[in-house]
Amino acid sequence: MIYADNAATTKMSRAAVRTMTSLMEEEWGNPSSLYAHGQKAKEVLEQARADIAAVIGAEPREITFTSGGSEADNQAILSAAALGQKMGKRHIISTAFEHHAVLHTLEKLQKEGFAVTLLDVHRDGLVVPEELEAAIRDDTCLVTVMYANNEIGTIQPIRKLGEICRRRGVLFHVDAVQAVGHIPVNVKADNIDMLSASGHKFHGPKGVGFLYVKKGIRLSSLIEGGAQERGKRAGTENVPGIAAMAEALKEADCGMAENMIRISALRDKLIRGLKEIPHSALNGDEARRLPGNVNFCFEGIEGESLLLLLDDKGICASSGSACTSGSLDPSHVLLAIGRMHDVAHGSLRLSIGEETTEEDVAYIIQSVKEVVEYLRGFSPIWRDLTAGKKAFIL
Amino acid sequence: MIYADNAATTKMSRAAVRTMTSLMEEEWGNPSSLYAHGQKAKEVLEQARADIAAVIGAEPREITFTSGGSEADNQAILSAAALGQKMGKRHIISTAFEHHAVLHTLEKLQKEGFAVTLLDVHRDGLVVPEELEAAIRDDTCLVTVMYANNEIGTIQPIRKLGEICRRRGVLFHVDAVQAVGHIPVNVKADNIDMLSASGHKFHGPKGVGFLYVKKGIRLSSLIEGGAQERGKRAGTENVPGIAAMAEALKEADCGMAENMIRISALRDKLIRGLKEIPHSALNGDEARRLPGNVNFCFEGIEGESLLLLLDDKGICASSGSACTSGSLDPSHVLLAIGRMHDVAHGSLRLSIGEETTEEDVAYIIQSVKEVVEYLRGFSPIWRDLTAGKKAFIL
Repeated sequence: MIYADNAATTKMSRAAVRTMTSLMEEEWGNPSSLYAHGQKAKEVLEQARADIAAVIGAEPREITFTSGGSEADNQAILSAAALGQKMGKRHIISTAFEHHAVLHTLEKLQKEGFAVTLLDVHRDGLVVPEELEAAIRDDTCLVTVMYANNEIGTIQPIRKLGEICRRRGVLFHVDAVQAVGHIPVNVKADNIDMLSASGHKFHGPKGVGFLYVKKGIRLSSLIEGGAQERGKRAGTENVPGIAAMAEALKEADCGMAENMIRISALRDKLIRGLKEIPHSALNGDEARRLPGNVNFCFEGIEGESLLLLLDDKGICASSGSACTSGSLDPSHVLLAIGRMHDVAHGSLRLSIGEETTEEDVAYIIQSVKEVVEYLRGFSPIWRDLTAGKKAFIL
Repeated sequence: MIYADNAATTKMSRAAVRTMTSLMEEEWGNPSSLYAHGQKAKEVLEQARADIAAVIGAEPREITFTSGGSEADNQAILSAAALGQKMGKRHIISTAFEHHAVLHTLEKLQKEGFAVTLLDVHRDGLVVPEELEAAIRDDTCLVTVMYANNEIGTIQPIRKLGEICRRRGVLFHVDAVQAVGHIPVNVKADNIDMLSASGHKFHGPKGVGFLYVKKGIRLSSLIEGGAQERGKRAGTENVPGIAAMAEALKEADCGMAENMIRISALRDKLIRGLKEIPHSALNGDEARRLPGNVNFCFEGIEGESLLLLLDDKGICASSGSACTSGSLDPSHVLLAIGRMHDVAHGSLRLSIGEETTEEDVAYIIQSVKEVVEYLRGFSPIWRDLTAGKKAFIL
């Protein structure tokens, strides 16, 4: 199996599995318990918090553990909206190609009377800082922009956007689920007020994530109950999961520089190879993208068939976000960067990682070429295009 | 170490750890992915859903996975409130000694204009069905009562309460976090509309739980985002955690009858032994309580010192809920059953389980006797009581 869907989920690192297993068997106490067995779990929990904080340039008490990236996004945005509400500020700025954990939360707020401006991400999938500056109003309480897009991998100019928000006194939330553990993220240097991350995207476990919130910003609870996480997130802490996530993040951080060089070289090789396919196009800016992300559109192709045939060849890939698979609508991300419906349907996301080899890349290129050619042989759209009855878009 | 705090958390069963580890290493794909590796994870997820549903007498599609009991409680109550709101029904009935995941969610709803009636749980810690019947109003949209109390272990007459709710057309939610896996729970026989449970309370992993919702009842999302869990709970599914929870629940269900007999016999022995301590009292009804729960008050004692000295003797116990430890307030549960502040401060919860032995029980009795006597030697309150300057309560 060649796994090229690391943006959907990653395989847990050996060290993360080891940490998790040992904690499930040994330090499994409730960290809120007073006896030594509970306090040992508490120490593990606080060490994980300190480790994670150190990696992203935060203080330990600025980290709140959640069940994943979606929960962190929901809680951050609803908290910022509650703060805005108190000051009579009910305007939020975001982009049209955020993850649904952000977009659907914004829709919920719109129903409650909040106004939302979605910034254009243009053909290259990038926000223009001046356009953010121009969109900020007196009643803007929050700007929420993802660090890197989950489908096309484009990396936003977060530092500049954060600098604008700070200058204008607006809270800045960043969904960094695809970025943390893959590219350098530092909340202080990047001027970030709130940041969401998810363990299973950087070789940690599923079901655990974290939310960074700059000290002084009042977080609201999404899940009410016990006084865990300084009263901001109820429920017995998932200590084994949290510690395994910290372990995975430390590992990812440690190997990051080397991995970025190696993986982005493979990515570029993959992009060059797939560009040879006629009437294909890379989605998103070629330079400002995640080291492991490749996303292409192929004209005259139906994305799902492409994936199934690649699966037959042992390649795990996706058409876009796993969170929206099963939906027949084309990706909202591809529509946001201006791809037409027809073309957006024929998309392929390959997200490679630490385990990907040169041979894997060569095999993927060869396989995609074969499958695209094969599918085009059956495609009525492709027949119309080649017969000149329809105009090529790509 | 003698672990007598199973109500706070339990040690994962060997089978649950094995399931979790093997899934982290093998079937770690994203269940929303189309390729075989993702679909295998999907099969594991759906098998877990079917297994859990079978144990509690539900249909698989009536099970929604959450990050734990607190999230399930929050989502169930907010969903019922949203349904009530639509019909102009804004009255909720509960009890004063629910878990804070329920009580704090109700407080949030009160701020939004909902009226809440808290039923008396009396000296024995039990709701009187006729009092529920009398409390139901035309605008009652929800009754939420816990199956078994987390501190004093009393088991409510859930079936009767459910029968009343069904007859009166009111939704019935049950926080069954302490009951599932320990005593028989069947949502159909018990007339339950919504039920919350948590994996780590029955030897499954932390960070995972489930919510049963009877088909036809519209669940609202607490966490917005991707279309996982039929669009009702966003976020990549924690497949290893969910499958390990299912494994633990099947095991617990399989051994339940035998464990109930064995553990409740040990419990009764423990109760008899601790009753020999002068001026002590069992909290909650002696018969209608969880097999593993023992909760005592000792006059003239400060609960925290008791726990620390027991810890020195290798016994893990608690004064009440781990979720509220660290708080200086006496337990809201003990106050609800009418214990005076002074006495409520001197409480001890021992929650024994499958691994507890006869020898453990004898050792616990001996140790508690010694520690209570030792602490009373230092206690100014105890001096006043024995000198007749103050009246004994117990």
